[in-house]
Amino acid sequence: MRPASADRHRLTASTGLAALGLDALASCAYGPESIVLALSVAGAAGIGLTVPVTLVIVGLLAVLVICYRQVIAAYPDGGGAYTVARDNLGRRAGLVAAASLVVDYVLNVAVSVAAGVAALTSAFPVLLPWTVELCLAVLLLVTAVNLRGVVTGGRLFALPALVFVGSLVVLIVVGLFRGGPIAPLPPTDPVITPQTVGILLVLAAFANGCSALTGVEAIANATPSFRAPGRVRARRAEAGLGLVLGTLLIGLAVLVEMFHAGPVTDRTLLSLLAEGSIGTGPLYVVVQLATVVLLGLAANTSFGGLPVLAARLAADGALPHVFGLRGDRQVYRASIVVLAVLSGALLLFSAGQVAVLVPLFAIGVFVGFSLCQAGMLRHWWTLRGPRWRSQAALSVLGVTLTGAAAIVLTAEKFTAGAWLIVLVIPLLVLLFVAVRRSYARIGQVLEVDQCPQPPRPTASVVVVPVVGISRLAEESLSAALSMGDGTVAVHVVLGEESEDRAAADSLQDRWQEWRPDVPLVLLPAVDERGRPSRVLGPAIAHYLRSVAEPAGERVLLLVGEVAPDHWWQQALFNRRGAVVARYAERHTDAVVCRLRFRLLPRRHSEPAHTSTQNRTLVPQQTV
Amino acid sequence: MRPASADRHRLTASTGLAALGLDALASCAYGPESIVLALSVAGAAGIGLTVPVTLVIVGLLAVLVICYRQVIAAYPDGGGAYTVARDNLGRRAGLVAAASLVVDYVLNVAVSVAAGVAALTSAFPVLLPWTVELCLAVLLLVTAVNLRGVVTGGRLFALPALVFVGSLVVLIVVGLFRGGPIAPLPPTDPVITPQTVGILLVLAAFANGCSALTGVEAIANATPSFRAPGRVRARRAEAGLGLVLGTLLIGLAVLVEMFHAGPVTDRTLLSLLAEGSIGTGPLYVVVQLATVVLLGLAANTSFGGLPVLAARLAADGALPHVFGLRGDRQVYRASIVVLAVLSGALLLFSAGQVAVLVPLFAIGVFVGFSLCQAGMLRHWWTLRGPRWRSQAALSVLGVTLTGAAAIVLTAEKFTAGAWLIVLVIPLLVLLFVAVRRSYARIGQVLEVDQCPQPPRPTASVVVVPVVGISRLAEESLSAALSMGDGTVAVHVVLGEESEDRAAADSLQDRWQEWRPDVPLVLLPAVDERGRPSRVLGPAIAHYLRSVAEPAGERVLLLVGEVAPDHWWQQALFNRRGAVVARYAERHTDAVVCRLRFRLLPRRHSEPAHTSTQNRTLVPQQTV
Repeated sequence: MRPASADRHRLTASTGLAALGLDALASCAYGPESIVLALSVAGAAGIGLTVPVTLVIVGLLAVLVICYRQVIAAYPDGGGAYTVARDNLGRRAGLVAAASLVVDYVLNVAVSVAAGVAALTSAFPVLLPWTVELCLAVLLLVTAVNLRGVVTGGRLFALPALVFVGSLVVLIVVGLFRGGPIAPLPPTDPVITPQTVGILLVLAAFANGCSALTGVEAIANATPSFRAPGRVRARRAEAGLGLVLGTLLIGLAVLVEMFHAGPVTDRTLLSLLAEGSIGTGPLYVVVQLATVVLLGLAANTSFGGLPVLAARLAADGALPHVFGLRGDRQVYRASIVVLAVLSGALLLFSAGQVAVLVPLFAIGVFVGFSLCQAGMLRHWWTLRGPRWRSQAALSVLGVTLTGAAAIVLTAEKFTAGAWLIVLVIPLLVLLFVAVRRSYARIGQVLEVDQCPQPPRPTASVVVVPVVGISRLAEESLSAALSMGDGTVAVHVVLGEESEDRAAADSLQDRWQEWRPDVPLVLLPAVDERGRPSRVLGPAIAHYLRSVAEPAGERVLLLVGEVAPDHWWQQALFNRRGAVVARYAERHTDAVVCRLRFRLLPRRHSEPAHTSTQNRTLVPQQTV
Repeated sequence: MRPASADRHRLTASTGLAALGLDALASCAYGPESIVLALSVAGAAGIGLTVPVTLVIVGLLAVLVICYRQVIAAYPDGGGAYTVARDNLGRRAGLVAAASLVVDYVLNVAVSVAAGVAALTSAFPVLLPWTVELCLAVLLLVTAVNLRGVVTGGRLFALPALVFVGSLVVLIVVGLFRGGPIAPLPPTDPVITPQTVGILLVLAAFANGCSALTGVEAIANATPSFRAPGRVRARRAEAGLGLVLGTLLIGLAVLVEMFHAGPVTDRTLLSLLAEGSIGTGPLYVVVQLATVVLLGLAANTSFGGLPVLAARLAADGALPHVFGLRGDRQVYRASIVVLAVLSGALLLFSAGQVAVLVPLFAIGVFVGFSLCQAGMLRHWWTLRGPRWRSQAALSVLGVTLTGAAAIVLTAEKFTAGAWLIVLVIPLLVLLFVAVRRSYARIGQVLEVDQCPQPPRPTASVVVVPVVGISRLAEESLSAALSMGDGTVAVHVVLGEESEDRAAADSLQDRWQEWRPDVPLVLLPAVDERGRPSRVLGPAIAHYLRSVAEPAGERVLLLVGEVAPDHWWQQALFNRRGAVVARYAERHTDAVVCRLRFRLLPRRHSEPAHTSTQNRTLVPQQTV
């Protein structure tokens, strides 16, 4: 059992349905519209096919939901298509599924945000010029909410989801009861190249309508985000999602045929149906705003799903380990930031136009669906449990339908942007493989699978760069004497002019007065090739190497720096210590130690004298 | 004597005149225009006063040049108004002069660049919409040239200066010979509120014309940039500058009266005089382009002068020491970057309009002039050498004239932006004083003026965070054993879930198998207040403090990190080592040591096996 403190941040069935199912629910706003758009080129006869096509899609939805409930049961640690494909079809197939899911998650954010803003601008055309800015603002908001932890999202988004579903139900029931639009709807756009009803048209409508199915896999991928017992709660959320989504899709399709609704420029189909069913009064505004909010928030599905997938890939060594790190509030910060940046770039690139993004969208989704169901087919075949024939038959149906949809979509939309996805998925797979190979090599060199030799001490020498005699030098040399078998102070003489030499001579004189019992070595300032220079790093690095080489001793560089007591004092100190430390880290094998000397008066001494007389001014080279 | 290698980067009298005097020479393009603009409100009677006003200004120029030649002789280490005022009138007066000079340098860059682009757009009106972009491009170019060393500027700019001066001389001589314009000039702009000639009008014209005198102090401030003997070369450059500038100003004033030239929208006065004297043929284009190039390059004066002043302020502790650091090529990088950023901001703010910037410009200049000459007056009084009466009389004249100009300008232009300068100069002085006070305090705490106690070794303990058993741990612990009197390995247990605990238990088991002779301490991951957390820094910082407190030992934190062998591999490593090191540096007194483990196979061992089999994959928490 997990302790309550961590569990508090996890999802229940209902908050999980809201947080992870938003994408699927919100697709009510663009799925039916996509079907109508495809069918409308065949006029009223085409529109008349809306209900049959929707029924097929809802049938497919049922298959997918049942399939994913089985996936949740079989893989309670989440991972969805990736895990299923990897475990049943091999690592490569798993990585292809993962790549398609990554693409899908990123595009889902972009499409949802763009569609949300499109719904807003169709209600308030005055906002049309600010489309891209609105998209980026919504994206920023969703990202910020998710960086504060996924449960905040779940609770925060439950109310809008409820309002959206509720207002759609009211809209559908009132419309069915009325039996026709309350007033004539605006005229539909003229069809430029009218077509007849045929198998290609129906296939295109089916493929378009499948965009309503995106997101049903998110719950299965994010099972570990659920509160215990996670498996039960996730299955319940998945079933609830299927039920609600299917009902809404069928209801909207019936209304479309009843109202003879078709595409209208700058208006969404949903806004037309609302206008026909409940008029353009206050209720209409509620429906529109609920749609806007929900579409904007639908992007949240990806923020729930992608980090879990990325963490799984990181655990398998296919993505950098940073994607597997959770911060406080159980948040995968790296994934969230990368997701926000990539989808922001897509929104900028597409200028926030849904029509540009949708052709890119569905391909990755259906590749993932197909691979997942092919994996499940293999799973049933391997297990051959009591009901394996019916389970396998469902999977065969799923593979056939989603595979056909993927092929139709790719062929139809190839020149409209699908080529990008056809390019990106293999590139992502190559990236995963390259990362895995690098980790394998690193693991080998680090001997992580063996017991390395036990550590052994060696002789060590500490090199301390000094710029003057002060308490900073005292403190640095004290630390150095405590650390090594030998200590050397070095001073780099900058420049060859007489004043530079005089300063060095004066330092040597004061050093002898001070008697720190540590030798002081003056180094000429030279660059990497031994030419005179005015930078410190190469001179000190050269000295460190010369100390290390003959004796084979371990060399330590100790850099003392003054730690300012206020942030603004940072500007008073040149960053030479940091520069030298960084140079030595990059160009030598020395262990680089940094001592921060805090600006506190010496304890047990005379109270500090607060005059600002000339002599106590810190000399220019010292800090 | 300075060695040749550094001297090669320094200026001769002629390259110094070109590099540091450009601002003054280039003011020929806007100084006479400012006079005519002020006088034109009184019609032809006003324009008729151009030559007398110019003669007064040239007289003032002569006074200033003689005065600054004396400054160079008295202060061969440069510093100009700042040094003179500080040494003779006290530190505060010096800082006021310095603040006015800083303002002047920044504004000079902005005004020169804007005027250069204005000359360009007056010749090619098609470029008018790109004014701001052109300004920023010119600024970037000048900055880049100066970051490559001031002598590059000197040589590079000698030719355009020669072409500019030469073409002005041709223009003036041809015009005087001709006795009138070659063809009627475009009609002058109508005067909106005509005025009569009076003392206020003449004062305004004088104040406006004083913008032609900006920059004559730059050579005196930058004396150390000259090749030895710097004093002689700088005095020669100053005299040359006065001679050339005075001649050009008088010649142009005579032409103005002869041609009855007045202000014309979108045309510079210089382009009108050129048109009248030599027509609009190829020679006209040469004059215009030379003006454009020279005005653009005039900004260079500030890039020669400000860094020397800033370095002087830094040496006095009034500016952060970073302004006193010279990199390779003898360049003061910090000053150049700050100057570019501030003047870029001014150009953006003013949208590249000279008219917006000029009211801000001259006040700082004349405050500096006045303070410098007041300082010299005191200097002559203190010295009372053989010719002190005539020297003092000159200084009195200078103080009177420049002081009057400063007062007239401030009063006239206060609402047009001069209030900003009246605000900024005291703020800069306050900044200087605050910086000086901070350095005084730091110097006191560091005991830079005393001989601090000699360094003493103490007992030390090295804390090594480990995430797994590997060659990285072996190497880190070997280094730690070489460094301290005691070594402790610590492992932070992230999270309270069962898999986290299992991982920690497994690490402890493997540790006992490994027998590294170092104790392993498991630390719970807690935040600053002791609450469960998922970050490493606070847990380790808390442990470091608990080790240090009772025994009073010196505590070292040794962070081992894998150094990737390619830059792109950086992404494969989470930056936890760096995060822990930075947290410990900020929140504890421990010396933080970082060991970079290079990814090389163990020497003298079996050749590496390049399989990518599962078991050699580096585990997720290790790197």
